[in-house]
Amino acid sequence: MHISTALLTDHYELTMVDAALKAGTADRRSMFELFARRLSGARRYGVVAGTGRLLEAIQQFRFTDAELDFLREQQVVSASTIEWLADYRFSGEIWGYPEGEVFFPGSPLLTVEGSFAEGVILETLALSIMNYDSAVATAASRMVYAANGKPLAEMGSRRTAERSAVAAARAAYIAGFSATSNLEAGRSYGIPTMGTAAHSFTLLHDSEREAFEAQIAAFGTDTTLLIDTYDIEQGVRTAIDVAGTELGAVRIDSGDLTVVAAEVRALLDSLGATNTRITVTNDLDEHTVAALAASPVDSFGVGTSVVIGSGSPTMGMVYKLVARENDEGEWVSVAKKSTDKASVGGRKSVRRLLNSRGVARSELIFLGDGPGGTPEGTDVAETSRQVLEQFVDGGSVAQRFTGTEGIALARERHRASIAELPAVAMSLTRGDPAITTEYR
Amino acid sequence: MHISTALLTDHYELTMVDAALKAGTADRRSMFELFARRLSGARRYGVVAGTGRLLEAIQQFRFTDAELDFLREQQVVSASTIEWLADYRFSGEIWGYPEGEVFFPGSPLLTVEGSFAEGVILETLALSIMNYDSAVATAASRMVYAANGKPLAEMGSRRTAERSAVAAARAAYIAGFSATSNLEAGRSYGIPTMGTAAHSFTLLHDSEREAFEAQIAAFGTDTTLLIDTYDIEQGVRTAIDVAGTELGAVRIDSGDLTVVAAEVRALLDSLGATNTRITVTNDLDEHTVAALAASPVDSFGVGTSVVIGSGSPTMGMVYKLVARENDEGEWVSVAKKSTDKASVGGRKSVRRLLNSRGVARSELIFLGDGPGGTPEGTDVAETSRQVLEQFVDGGSVAQRFTGTEGIALARERHRASIAELPAVAMSLTRGDPAITTEYR
Repeated sequence: MHISTALLTDHYELTMVDAALKAGTADRRSMFELFARRLSGARRYGVVAGTGRLLEAIQQFRFTDAELDFLREQQVVSASTIEWLADYRFSGEIWGYPEGEVFFPGSPLLTVEGSFAEGVILETLALSIMNYDSAVATAASRMVYAANGKPLAEMGSRRTAERSAVAAARAAYIAGFSATSNLEAGRSYGIPTMGTAAHSFTLLHDSEREAFEAQIAAFGTDTTLLIDTYDIEQGVRTAIDVAGTELGAVRIDSGDLTVVAAEVRALLDSLGATNTRITVTNDLDEHTVAALAASPVDSFGVGTSVVIGSGSPTMGMVYKLVARENDEGEWVSVAKKSTDKASVGGRKSVRRLLNSRGVARSELIFLGDGPGGTPEGTDVAETSRQVLEQFVDGGSVAQRFTGTEGIALARERHRASIAELPAVAMSLTRGDPAITTEYR
Repeated sequence: MHISTALLTDHYELTMVDAALKAGTADRRSMFELFARRLSGARRYGVVAGTGRLLEAIQQFRFTDAELDFLREQQVVSASTIEWLADYRFSGEIWGYPEGEVFFPGSPLLTVEGSFAEGVILETLALSIMNYDSAVATAASRMVYAANGKPLAEMGSRRTAERSAVAAARAAYIAGFSATSNLEAGRSYGIPTMGTAAHSFTLLHDSEREAFEAQIAAFGTDTTLLIDTYDIEQGVRTAIDVAGTELGAVRIDSGDLTVVAAEVRALLDSLGATNTRITVTNDLDEHTVAALAASPVDSFGVGTSVVIGSGSPTMGMVYKLVARENDEGEWVSVAKKSTDKASVGGRKSVRRLLNSRGVARSELIFLGDGPGGTPEGTDVAETSRQVLEQFVDGGSVAQRFTGTEGIALARERHRASIAELPAVAMSLTRGDPAITTEYR
């Protein structure tokens, strides 16, 4: 496993740099924009995630001898370009939607300004991270809403590739999950980790009772016993018999959870274990979580569906050159002409328009202003707030957006951003974005 | 980025080890099986991938001070378990379906035999890798069939998380793709990489002609020009005007590819560029590739759909304790009793039954035999072949299944394995597995 992120890149990014260096166009000041043309899965809003990871990855985007040797041997680029890559450090500016913020079609999630070569080379890495992490966060956010205040744990590591699992845990946490099963996410990002036992632990022992006794001996009674390996009713009785009525929780991983949870609650109560909580974990998604809202379930463990974006495992974001300087040093909007992939060129700033009650009404994208600019002449009596923030200034990454500080900030921002959305945003059905995107 | 894979693990794997060590049950000889209850997406066959990566990851599964410090600080396990983890080396046996092999519901893709503790701790990592890589390979294999001999390049790095992208390139290559855009896959696994330019390269320049001239100057005429940034007909004319009739290829990334490819082929021919190839890359999947079979397309670039398993981004494989020794040292089959998640316990060996023409008829799973055993009394006049291979013996990994050698072997095996399947296996519609799984 190489630490450098520089080869997590499509071959053509480097051949473009190579050809542009030879043509003398590589240094043209350019602006790339990362955005989604639509919301995957006809969701009502998207959730930005991955920004902090991307900023960390950009700091590791270095062509050391190991990378350069490969590129030289495979003749991916010419010798002069190898030299250029050896010195590569992103030296430009990056603005964008801060992590945790909600977004809509066309939202300029990242604006990368620098030379063509230094900007284009980040395309693949930026899209890989943002597309996956945002897909997970977008799904996770809906689940958090569906859970109606009850805590959710992310447990999907086994259903996505091993390093994606860590990213997924992070994205779900930003979107409001309380914990993860993934230990690397605990180490790398400080996310609370949790878990007790699987069915194999029960099957290892000569009886369910012996398994429960072993677990209680190791962790005390404030643990979660998995009670559905054999017969659920007997499992509950054995659990309380072994742990007493102070047992922390029972976990149910099979069956019709609405029915079973009610039966287990009644049984626990009848045994005097009125404080013992119920957690459920059987192939949940936002719809099944919502359906369990009225049942006596205390917490949810969500696996597969959150790490695969609940049916939309990637956001479909793209990274496009939207403007560049011409020979006179003036910015020129550029756009591909193909009708089915039209993108809106030029430099942009963004404000979220809110009504007098603080409810989001629309996303205002001001063309022509640089990111972070304060457009004048907005014809609104209503309030609006600035959306873009600057992540990188002259190549220097603002560290508050990275690491555990960045995650804490993103989690808080997500909460605030969701609270602004109109009620329709929380619909789990497919439909139009919750607010419109307007270009001004 | 930590090199150790040990924390790419669910919290509960370690708490189970902790409790089992305390209870004196951790050393019970156990057999875990990794299998899929059904084929995701109602596919006709699955393709095993990830095995080589898993074997490499198991060799990196070490709890160094960095991992142990985290576990100690977070009190994930007790001090005595920390000591056990510090010495952890998998010392058991692993048998399974070799990479590239096709599989069916119930196929024992991995059989992990060792102490309970040393086997259970690999659960999350094994599932993460196998579920993702196999999902990609299963989708990729269908695309290869749909392409009917024309080459496919994997270009989906931007639509899956950055390290998954490398795994996806590897899995697609095993399933028969010819190349990838992902440079890290080229470095790590020796997979051919390819790519030339994106629309941004054309937009960087003052005209399409200048962009084409820059690319030809850098790479000669045997390159691929992207001709749909503005007007496709004009793009083709400019391409041939700049490169001459020896231009290697043109790439089309938008529009109705069936119509456009035919028009571009006719135009190229009319301009004398009869050897210039056409490659297409616009949101392809196995269905659109199949639909283009009769069109004058020479090669395909597939992005999103292959890296997200074309609608089935994870295989739904599970890792279950199927047998363990009792206090008398006898193997005992174990199985969870819950009706909706029944698994077939015990030790197994597998043969693929073929008819007299060498066409696969069914997957025979022999219960009770150890993996690799040669069951007797098979009542078939037909032929059959052994499926399982041994990957790990006494903790030692058979290196031929890893690295570039393992990939080459897997790619060849996939070709041979696919060639055995009945015609129905190649149906792109949803349906039953191509052959039945029979327990004997």
